[in-house]
Amino acid sequence: MIEVDAIKSYFTGLQRGLIERLNGLDPKARQQADAWDRPEGGGGFSHLLAGGGLIEKGGINFSHVHGPGLPASATRRRPELANRAFQAMGVSVVLHPVNPFVPSTHMNVRFFTTSGPHEAKPTWWFGGGFDLTPCYPFLEDARDWHAAARRACQPYGPDLYQRFKDACDTYFFLPHRKETRGVGGLFFDDFDELGPADSFAMVRSIGDAFLPAWESIAEKRRHQGFGEREKSFQRYRRGRYVEFNLLYDRGTLFGLQSNGRTESILMSLPPTVEWIYDYTPPPGSPEESLTREFLQPKDWLNVKQTAKPSL
Amino acid sequence: MIEVDAIKSYFTGLQRGLIERLNGLDPKARQQADAWDRPEGGGGFSHLLAGGGLIEKGGINFSHVHGPGLPASATRRRPELANRAFQAMGVSVVLHPVNPFVPSTHMNVRFFTTSGPHEAKPTWWFGGGFDLTPCYPFLEDARDWHAAARRACQPYGPDLYQRFKDACDTYFFLPHRKETRGVGGLFFDDFDELGPADSFAMVRSIGDAFLPAWESIAEKRRHQGFGEREKSFQRYRRGRYVEFNLLYDRGTLFGLQSNGRTESILMSLPPTVEWIYDYTPPPGSPEESLTREFLQPKDWLNVKQTAKPSL
Repeated sequence: MIEVDAIKSYFTGLQRGLIERLNGLDPKARQQADAWDRPEGGGGFSHLLAGGGLIEKGGINFSHVHGPGLPASATRRRPELANRAFQAMGVSVVLHPVNPFVPSTHMNVRFFTTSGPHEAKPTWWFGGGFDLTPCYPFLEDARDWHAAARRACQPYGPDLYQRFKDACDTYFFLPHRKETRGVGGLFFDDFDELGPADSFAMVRSIGDAFLPAWESIAEKRRHQGFGEREKSFQRYRRGRYVEFNLLYDRGTLFGLQSNGRTESILMSLPPTVEWIYDYTPPPGSPEESLTREFLQPKDWLNVKQTAKPSL
Repeated sequence: MIEVDAIKSYFTGLQRGLIERLNGLDPKARQQADAWDRPEGGGGFSHLLAGGGLIEKGGINFSHVHGPGLPASATRRRPELANRAFQAMGVSVVLHPVNPFVPSTHMNVRFFTTSGPHEAKPTWWFGGGFDLTPCYPFLEDARDWHAAARRACQPYGPDLYQRFKDACDTYFFLPHRKETRGVGGLFFDDFDELGPADSFAMVRSIGDAFLPAWESIAEKRRHQGFGEREKSFQRYRRGRYVEFNLLYDRGTLFGLQSNGRTESILMSLPPTVEWIYDYTPPPGSPEESLTREFLQPKDWLNVKQTAKPSL
């Protein structure tokens, strides 16, 4: 039997812990907490960090919505569940740092359950993962990130990291740009294969591994000096983040289709963004290396250091 | 018989004329012209204006693409035409001005034709229209704009303006924000009801009316002083433009789905954009009036001046 209350309790505790830890990392950030109700059932708790020394804009959101009809965007694997009564809850985090050398990051853990008139027991599944979107390319950051991702999955099955890593590369891909959103990480959906207890334990392992993995990269990069060149490139790259989230992201589309709170859903969008027509980075620059070497799916844990490091 | 060559000739001439006139209005704008080929057939000619005194970023684009399978986004009214061999050509203009008191604007005229193995003659239709997206609300600008729209349609049928105006309000609507993109104008699609010659003449009338209508508003507003408050609100409002274009715009989705040139398709996105979490304009301010009074469908030609003008 799946323990909905235990899952909810883990999710709300995870959100609380993330907010506390991020406050510690960025005590000067402005904070705004909003509780909201969804007219059709459920609601959420949104927490913003903005204008800090580390975080330019970040959202740490919890929501729990339920209703009579599951939106089509919620499950690809089981389209027959569309329009069933459902509950969905999750924690979603997006952090857009000030310093262009600190990567943006995203984490989500979610739980769905549906029930229909002809079902003896509810159908349930987990989804989620975490991914890293650097603006400047550092091989060791991508490696460290993926090492943390693998460690989080390892106890639950030897093949999980590779499957979730591949799914992440496939999911966070912008076909119109022929590039991934970032260097990936983990992505899973429609996940119930370990049974209720172990599936939930795996989700906790991934949820708990997220912030320490990002924090160690952020601490390494946050004091690295930057100027207008890097800041401008960061605004430009954030345009890709917007493109992905509004064109392709199922979480965003699910939120908007299920009449979630728009300001909470779109909290994931970066603060300042720039679209520059036909921008081409200088040959041999780190900006060029980002797209050419880092935004293509890669086996980060086994990439050989090239003769000439990219940075 | 529909004269594809005459239509193409009008479209390319319209683009040329718009570029020339905009150069005259904004001689200091940087220009960039790019011809591009689509691997699957056809191509286009993109023209950028940027960094000028009037235009911060603008695109004046022509494209003519053809292929064996029409993307589903191309026709709503006739889904049976999906996957037929097609030709699509059009001119598309988006102007994002420097001065927040000058409205952004968009114009499109397009022509589609399809043919299938079982058809005696090709199916064809026109689409297009123009619309205005003010950042600050001026009743007289909305009125003048709609008066020009009505004049352009008048010779082709007494009901066309109202139908196209209503369609524009319906089309340029952001359900997640419960607001229109701007004050509207004209929108039509799947249009063939006047027969080939008169349908084409109507399209020419609308295409030719666009720039003079915007120009008279732009000339009135372009020297009005503004500061960081107005510029910041403009960046914020441009976020809505991005949301509409990436979440809902059929032209954008058609372009991306049909493997058009990404940089030309996304030329419509504004240059600098800001997403501010949960922004609420000061009560009684022009920023509040914009959303409350101007971004709801309205019969602009018959709006009574309220006792207290909004600006």
